[in-house]
Amino acid sequence: MRHLLDTRTLAKDDALRILDTAEDMAATQQREVKKLPTLRGKTVVNLFYEDSTRTRISFEAAAKRLSADVINFSAKGSSVSKGESLKDTAQTLQAIGADGVVIRHPGSGAPARLASSGWIDAGVLNAGDGTHEHPTQALLDAFTMRRRLFGEDLAGSRGRDLDGVSAVIVGDLAHSRVARSNLWLLTTLGAHVTFVAPETLQPYGARTWPVTVRHSLDEALREDAPDVVMMLRIQSERMHAAFFPNEREYARNWGLDDGRLAALPERTIVMHPGPMNRGLEISSAAADSERSTVLEQVANGVSVRMAALYLLLSGERETQA
Amino acid sequence: MRHLLDTRTLAKDDALRILDTAEDMAATQQREVKKLPTLRGKTVVNLFYEDSTRTRISFEAAAKRLSADVINFSAKGSSVSKGESLKDTAQTLQAIGADGVVIRHPGSGAPARLASSGWIDAGVLNAGDGTHEHPTQALLDAFTMRRRLFGEDLAGSRGRDLDGVSAVIVGDLAHSRVARSNLWLLTTLGAHVTFVAPETLQPYGARTWPVTVRHSLDEALREDAPDVVMMLRIQSERMHAAFFPNEREYARNWGLDDGRLAALPERTIVMHPGPMNRGLEISSAAADSERSTVLEQVANGVSVRMAALYLLLSGERETQA
Amino acid sequence: MRHLLDTRTLAKDDALRILDTAEDMAATQQREVKKLPTLRGKTVVNLFYEDSTRTRISFEAAAKRLSADVINFSAKGSSVSKGESLKDTAQTLQAIGADGVVIRHPGSGAPARLASSGWIDAGVLNAGDGTHEHPTQALLDAFTMRRRLFGEDLAGSRGRDLDGVSAVIVGDLAHSRVARSNLWLLTTLGAHVTFVAPETLQPYGARTWPVTVRHSLDEALREDAPDVVMMLRIQSERMHAAFFPNEREYARNWGLDDGRLAALPERTIVMHPGPMNRGLEISSAAADSERSTVLEQVANGVSVRMAALYLLLSGERETQA
Repeated sequence: MRHLLDTRTLAKDDALRILDTAEDMAATQQREVKKLPTLRGKTVVNLFYEDSTRTRISFEAAAKRLSADVINFSAKGSSVSKGESLKDTAQTLQAIGADGVVIRHPGSGAPARLASSGWIDAGVLNAGDGTHEHPTQALLDAFTMRRRLFGEDLAGSRGRDLDGVSAVIVGDLAHSRVARSNLWLLTTLGAHVTFVAPETLQPYGARTWPVTVRHSLDEALREDAPDVVMMLRIQSERMHAAFFPNEREYARNWGLDDGRLAALPERTIVMHPGPMNRGLEISSAAADSERSTVLEQVANGVSVRMAALYLLLSGERETQA
Repeated sequence: MRHLLDTRTLAKDDALRILDTAEDMAATQQREVKKLPTLRGKTVVNLFYEDSTRTRISFEAAAKRLSADVINFSAKGSSVSKGESLKDTAQTLQAIGADGVVIRHPGSGAPARLASSGWIDAGVLNAGDGTHEHPTQALLDAFTMRRRLFGEDLAGSRGRDLDGVSAVIVGDLAHSRVARSNLWLLTTLGAHVTFVAPETLQPYGARTWPVTVRHSLDEALREDAPDVVMMLRIQSERMHAAFFPNEREYARNWGLDDGRLAALPERTIVMHPGPMNRGLEISSAAADSERSTVLEQVANGVSVRMAALYLLLSGERETQA
Repeated sequence: MRHLLDTRTLAKDDALRILDTAEDMAATQQREVKKLPTLRGKTVVNLFYEDSTRTRISFEAAAKRLSADVINFSAKGSSVSKGESLKDTAQTLQAIGADGVVIRHPGSGAPARLASSGWIDAGVLNAGDGTHEHPTQALLDAFTMRRRLFGEDLAGSRGRDLDGVSAVIVGDLAHSRVARSNLWLLTTLGAHVTFVAPETLQPYGARTWPVTVRHSLDEALREDAPDVVMMLRIQSERMHAAFFPNEREYARNWGLDDGRLAALPERTIVMHPGPMNRGLEISSAAADSERSTVLEQVANGVSVRMAALYLLLSGERETQA
């Protein structure tokens, strides 16, 4: 692998390689000294055109755990946020010898443009672009599902795909890069995905995607008997828009409340990319229940990002480019 | 020790252990290569909900000198500055494997809440919370007193408390976490503390504390014959408040001016946590005199913070938790 | 060398020593592991009173490539941007044991003030001060000229000055620290410099400097037959000023357009410190031509800054102070 830009075009073998490598990384994080010398001498730049402290420090911790040097470059609000300067910025990163660039950008497709431009030799990792994709989030979600559904030991998960798993994703799907990245990755891994939202929050074009579209959460829980219920964060600032349900209506119809939680099949896990709006898309009981994987997802994020950085930036790379 | 949250509940043995360890750290900082491998593989997060470049870089230098990886997290002005998200943030820090969290927060008690929440396993170091405490400042002040009063060599200071020392602290005590942390620590170490300020700047409740309260600086200097005179920074933006003396009146009555400087006993040292308002709470002659410890305080801050990070985060920790 | 404050007073031997050391550094950057242990245990502070992400990350990469610890201190907009606090800040940096301070400041002379103040022992590197100087930019420009004109191998460039080289610098010279630093350095190295700009953009005092002043770019290209044409960035926000030519007039009279590019002598190289305004001071054809050194300049910046940090901060320093 040379870049990690999306999950839509990520081959199943590559996805499984990242997940299995992340198992190895997770194992090293249990040791007294968690640091590995793997990327010593490599430089990783966090190029963030949007604020995202959680994602940035997850990548920063992952890179430092592998002994890479990390340079943070917050471009938000500065003059470099325009199209022209993505090139200037890329050339600067090339010139300083960046081996990896982790990019977060409000424009869908910016990471792909960076990777295909010829401006840089560095491996590019998409840390979220517009409403397009957020591939490491989907990978950490898949990693979390695999561990929860098949066992946390390596023997249980290693090499396994998600064949036959049923996942229901609920929320503002129209604007969610997390939903998109999960759809493509889970489908590649053999899972079946259902999108649940009011019609106004369904993504344009979803009817042509390999996904079941439903408007009723109760119907989805009843009909799909899901292994996984993934609740997305609702941006309450969008609640003021005319076409949007109000908070009360949203919570009643599409929130994972205590009643729906109690009715879930025993094996079903509850996921959320965080941060949660308790009482809106998820009740506190659901968020804090044994079924909830919210904290594991964040922890698994470091292992998955270590794996991605390792596979893209270590010596193996040259021979695969 | 598991956390360093305040000096009010800091046991004398623990305080002396930090001070003695800081002597060892100060000795290593005289070497050609100042870096120690002690915290290699550990991750320290600087979680700052208020700007404080001086304190942040002191902790950052201390952690890097011990070979820890440092991740800076400036939460000021972002959406994470609300109560709910301290939990979300803490869980993120837990998930990325933070071993230590240095927290600065405008809310009194936020570090204690973080430490006692069960959200994280990391050692928590309070770098200043509201008007509550700033324990590493008090420790570096005590370290500076010990070295100045008993000798800069290890033999002079090691193991010594401040029994019999008299310290006068002058300024906006009502809002000063530095004054509070010094009061508790100096009292624990056997010193006697006097608070000097106009009545409107005395802290509520001081009459029940182990402190002598005075309104006249001249009276304090005459009656207490202090070994230490500690001047606090006056926030001149507070000068507009009705209950506050104006700058001229303040300097005349509560400033350490040249006349008061000349009248000090020969052994008396002059301290200030910085940055100073020359001409307001302290004259330039006082700030730059041989008695002044202002620069030593900053330098000692790195040694004290190295000691605290070492004691909280090194291998010893597990057995004491 | 103890500091790197300007090129006006930089001795020729010292300039050549930096350039030759930069050749060594550039060679190490071709290796699989680019990191050198040279400055392990040293602390470099990036003290930036103005935003300049490109310069900051170039210095940060250079310092980390030498294994130094780097602390970023962005002072822009904070209370530390006033004169008084440069002293407070310097004393903090001294106290935390900074070995090198890279300073960018809107005030001409601030780095020299820091270096000569006695406030710090650290080596000071000027990363751009007001309209005064930007010495590492001039050094990377000279390094780039030497490699392009005499060969990229060490044998071709090592020890060579720029005797007989003719350089034309075009643009807003009145406000350009890059032009000033280049003028002094290139002159020291034996080159001849011509400044080209409308009268309103010529620097005050240029008539007393060792430079040929011209108002016509066409005349300069015809009369000087330059080896080097260096185009400076035009700040288009200055275009609104009454005394300034408008963009169209500027491009027509002082831009390096396709016609002027085609007429250049074959050996002539085209330089630009970046970021470029394509279509204003430089055409896209010129920017992307074989003659253009724009990307090499950025890459050479890391090598030159590694060299400067090495010469100022390594063990050699003490004996030369």
